[in-house]
Amino acid sequence: MGWKQKGYFNFGGQGPLSPQTLSAIEQGYDKIQEQGPFSQGVNAWLQEESANTRQAIAQELGTTPETITLTENVTVGCNIALWGLSWQKQDHILLSDCEHPGIIATIQEIADRFGINYSTCPIMDTLNQGDPTAVFKQHLRENTKLVVLSHLLWNTGQVLPLKAITEVCHQQGVKVLVDAAQSVGSLPLDLPHTDVDFYAFTGHKWLCGPAGVGGLYISKPSFSDLRPTFIGWRGINLDDRGKPVSYKEDGRKFEVATAAYPQYMGLTSAIEQHHQWGTTTERYHKICELSKILWERLSNLKGIHCLRTSPPEAGLVSFQLENISHKPFVTELEKEGFLLRTLADPDCIRACVHYFTTVEAIEALVETIKTKLSSG
Amino acid sequence: MGWKQKGYFNFGGQGPLSPQTLSAIEQGYDKIQEQGPFSQGVNAWLQEESANTRQAIAQELGTTPETITLTENVTVGCNIALWGLSWQKQDHILLSDCEHPGIIATIQEIADRFGINYSTCPIMDTLNQGDPTAVFKQHLRENTKLVVLSHLLWNTGQVLPLKAITEVCHQQGVKVLVDAAQSVGSLPLDLPHTDVDFYAFTGHKWLCGPAGVGGLYISKPSFSDLRPTFIGWRGINLDDRGKPVSYKEDGRKFEVATAAYPQYMGLTSAIEQHHQWGTTTERYHKICELSKILWERLSNLKGIHCLRTSPPEAGLVSFQLENISHKPFVTELEKEGFLLRTLADPDCIRACVHYFTTVEAIEALVETIKTKLSSG
Repeated sequence: MGWKQKGYFNFGGQGPLSPQTLSAIEQGYDKIQEQGPFSQGVNAWLQEESANTRQAIAQELGTTPETITLTENVTVGCNIALWGLSWQKQDHILLSDCEHPGIIATIQEIADRFGINYSTCPIMDTLNQGDPTAVFKQHLRENTKLVVLSHLLWNTGQVLPLKAITEVCHQQGVKVLVDAAQSVGSLPLDLPHTDVDFYAFTGHKWLCGPAGVGGLYISKPSFSDLRPTFIGWRGINLDDRGKPVSYKEDGRKFEVATAAYPQYMGLTSAIEQHHQWGTTTERYHKICELSKILWERLSNLKGIHCLRTSPPEAGLVSFQLENISHKPFVTELEKEGFLLRTLADPDCIRACVHYFTTVEAIEALVETIKTKLSSG
Repeated sequence: MGWKQKGYFNFGGQGPLSPQTLSAIEQGYDKIQEQGPFSQGVNAWLQEESANTRQAIAQELGTTPETITLTENVTVGCNIALWGLSWQKQDHILLSDCEHPGIIATIQEIADRFGINYSTCPIMDTLNQGDPTAVFKQHLRENTKLVVLSHLLWNTGQVLPLKAITEVCHQQGVKVLVDAAQSVGSLPLDLPHTDVDFYAFTGHKWLCGPAGVGGLYISKPSFSDLRPTFIGWRGINLDDRGKPVSYKEDGRKFEVATAAYPQYMGLTSAIEQHHQWGTTTERYHKICELSKILWERLSNLKGIHCLRTSPPEAGLVSFQLENISHKPFVTELEKEGFLLRTLADPDCIRACVHYFTTVEAIEALVETIKTKLSSG
């Protein structure tokens, strides 16, 4: 693929758009402008294209399109699940200590508004030893109603055993919401098999779709337990006088209103291109093969401490520098064409490799880091 | 402008994108891809561009950027206001009988969840006679907390006297939420002067920006009364360990997460192009001049009944056909290159003219309608 940028290691932040993906977006704009932008014809076609995007995503996640809600991003997907449950005073939410601040802030607001409680459990410490499932089980309370976790932790790169955790939670009648920002497009997924209730994701990271399109998977058993919060014409049925009479009975129930539709076409195209390269399992194995190389080379550098003591389970490789501030170091790398990012907790640098990252790119990055460390 | 499509009369559905606007979007994608897509440099630049978009919108609305929240569309803006108030059992919402079904459905859901009441008041009947302010005043209740109305009614094209209505509401301690889907980009606005509390709009209709970008104006006095509901990294401040500690203190407080940023650049460009043509007042006068022509010509056709008995107050011209179904008629017009839409309540056809619509286009539309009526 021609869109491989040599020094790009921020797939966990945003994936690059291939020329084909950009072209799909552009063609979407052109067709909308030529036949509309607002017309019976265009409006019907946009519904078809939205259905195609739900279908493409569903296939990637091992599920069926009616379980998919299209959203603007992963955070909106989490918010739909969090605000859609019927909270009662004294309910409890348990979350891992590796969740994104946006999700934590939402839970804080819900706690304030509805008088519920939340607490975190120490999952970060299970990166190299221990059993995250046991930690969740140990921290569940009588009144826990929801567990919130990331499938693939954005900071340490750990993959949590989703099926086992969901089983433990469901045994106690607790639902599970997953922040899948890092896992969709990098892990092979069969969501119905995991039994997870809510799985929120974005298309613009590992799936390499445009920013502005994500989604939420809602399991069939949990669909009726979730009420829509932000509501618009996409989620409702109208009577013949145009008045709302009911909600749609599939994932569209939680969609709101007009969106950047050409982006949907971009995401559909991006997913098709991944499938042309290989299955989700093949892509995942390639990611692991490459992240292992990066992890090994970094581990061998003096002055670098990789957070993991064994090869990564996915494409995220997080590491720390001895006696050197991470932020300026990343800024320096960026000037030389190597794009990485820092994280605040744990204080580290994160490099991501995708299935199309080359060994040469990894070697160039490691060489540059080595040179900087020895010159610094 | 070269992007005037001869038969286009759906500005109230979506505005066309000019070549400059499309080019701004494309340049946005290019720069993001070249310098990122995710990097310290790109991320800082996207914050600047978002600030530019808030600034451009603020200028258009007669306000300042800190009062502007960027959203995906007008419906999300309405939802932010509706879900952000502290509802108590028995609170009452009063809305006009001309509101969009998405907003009605949201109010129904809030009523169900929080045990509040809502009712509608007959504003549609004031199109040609009567005083909408008096109607609102008459229907306010002791426990009314919020009035919801559209500034420019999407069905009949009536402009409501916003300042007068707000004054009546505020006298009784009632806040006002406006669905500004049709008014932003068509009416000259000075929002602080109207004293309105919440004013939700979109960029993709009369402003001719891309679908997927809208916003919400929140007045300074009402800012602290509104809590954020859907929450993400854009609305929060973090401590040095990346944990959320507070909300942002301007409109960004209600923004959520990653969006289709090139669309922001498209909207900024579209607004700049309008300003190059003329002030909001000049554009509004031109719209009224042209809609008067359309209204007059249609009124003179046998078999057509314009809803208004006097020239339109803005760009929306709604009319009914005698003894002919509206939907198939609009479908037929679309086949001939004239794009209009039907509405369900009142059952009518709506034609919109913008300031750049030509008299020739209006004449061609009227001639085509006339021919169809006489041949049908």
